[in-house]
Amino acid sequence: MTVTAVATGATVWLTGLPSAGKTTLATALAGRLERPVEVLDGDEVRAFLSRGLGFSREDRDTNVLRIGWVAATLAKHGVVVLASVISPFADTRARVRELHEARGAGFVEVHVATPVEVCSERDVKGLYARQAAGELSGLTGVDAPYEAPEAPDAVVRTQDQTLAESVEQLLTVLRERGLA
Amino acid sequence: MTVTAVATGATVWLTGLPSAGKTTLATALAGRLERPVEVLDGDEVRAFLSRGLGFSREDRDTNVLRIGWVAATLAKHGVVVLASVISPFADTRARVRELHEARGAGFVEVHVATPVEVCSERDVKGLYARQAAGELSGLTGVDAPYEAPEAPDAVVRTQDQTLAESVEQLLTVLRERGLA
Repeated sequence: MTVTAVATGATVWLTGLPSAGKTTLATALAGRLERPVEVLDGDEVRAFLSRGLGFSREDRDTNVLRIGWVAATLAKHGVVVLASVISPFADTRARVRELHEARGAGFVEVHVATPVEVCSERDVKGLYARQAAGELSGLTGVDAPYEAPEAPDAVVRTQDQTLAESVEQLLTVLRERGLA
Repeated sequence: MTVTAVATGATVWLTGLPSAGKTTLATALAGRLERPVEVLDGDEVRAFLSRGLGFSREDRDTNVLRIGWVAATLAKHGVVVLASVISPFADTRARVRELHEARGAGFVEVHVATPVEVCSERDVKGLYARQAAGELSGLTGVDAPYEAPEAPDAVVRTQDQTLAESVEQLLTVLRERGLA
């Protein structure tokens, strides 16, 4: 569906467990970029693009690929997209990368690698507590799989550094790629 | 989810019956625009964004709003989006317009007003024939409603003019708005 495009955009794809700090990092990073940027939050986008989808493997994949498709389309037009999406499966993330490559858009995979023990303490949305109480199942990293990236472009250890330090870490990665 | 944006993009929303010539017009118009442009074709996008949705009123609305959301997000970043979507319901199109206004993006509603008699002769996808044969129901303009825009920004009568003339008509509309 491409007709004309500029070729300087990219998606920074933040993958990690619930409460790992993906959206916090995306929002803070967006505030440091002096160019058009779009933050796509997995939960927010799900409400619009994927209403009715559940959390089966197939539905999760569909949701991730939809966000990936939107991100790639924006990135193709020069936008830097910061996408915070649990995206637990490696091959689905690989397909998102392919969507970008097919459009000549950059793709930077960032593993927000906060350990599950830290995530479950933060528990921003109360998901870990609900899972522990038996009110919820299929929580990524607890009773649903999370396949950590094997060769991400960056690994952010939010448990070992401040938010500002994590932002600087990613800015360095983006600067190396001419994106910041 | 906005963080930073430029404010010069817009969506040209081409609404009309199946085989009215929406996608043909969008593609030809795209070839005349010397700026970043994205053609969103309702059928193509449906395959990616709305797999599993059917053709009930609710599912049609969901599909149209998803395309509208993607279009508005792109337009917010300065892209001219050419969206060819049957979008039969006036209030759904109004909601798409609102999505654009909320993002500071332009919205140009174009009624591709080819009459059903002409569309059913063209029948690019064989839908009218299948409906006539009883193999398909819910065909917009035949046995499903189409609410024509009451105050569109342009009405294109493809049955009365060449494709080149229709393109020129829309280029004039876009030039008046500083979009071409």
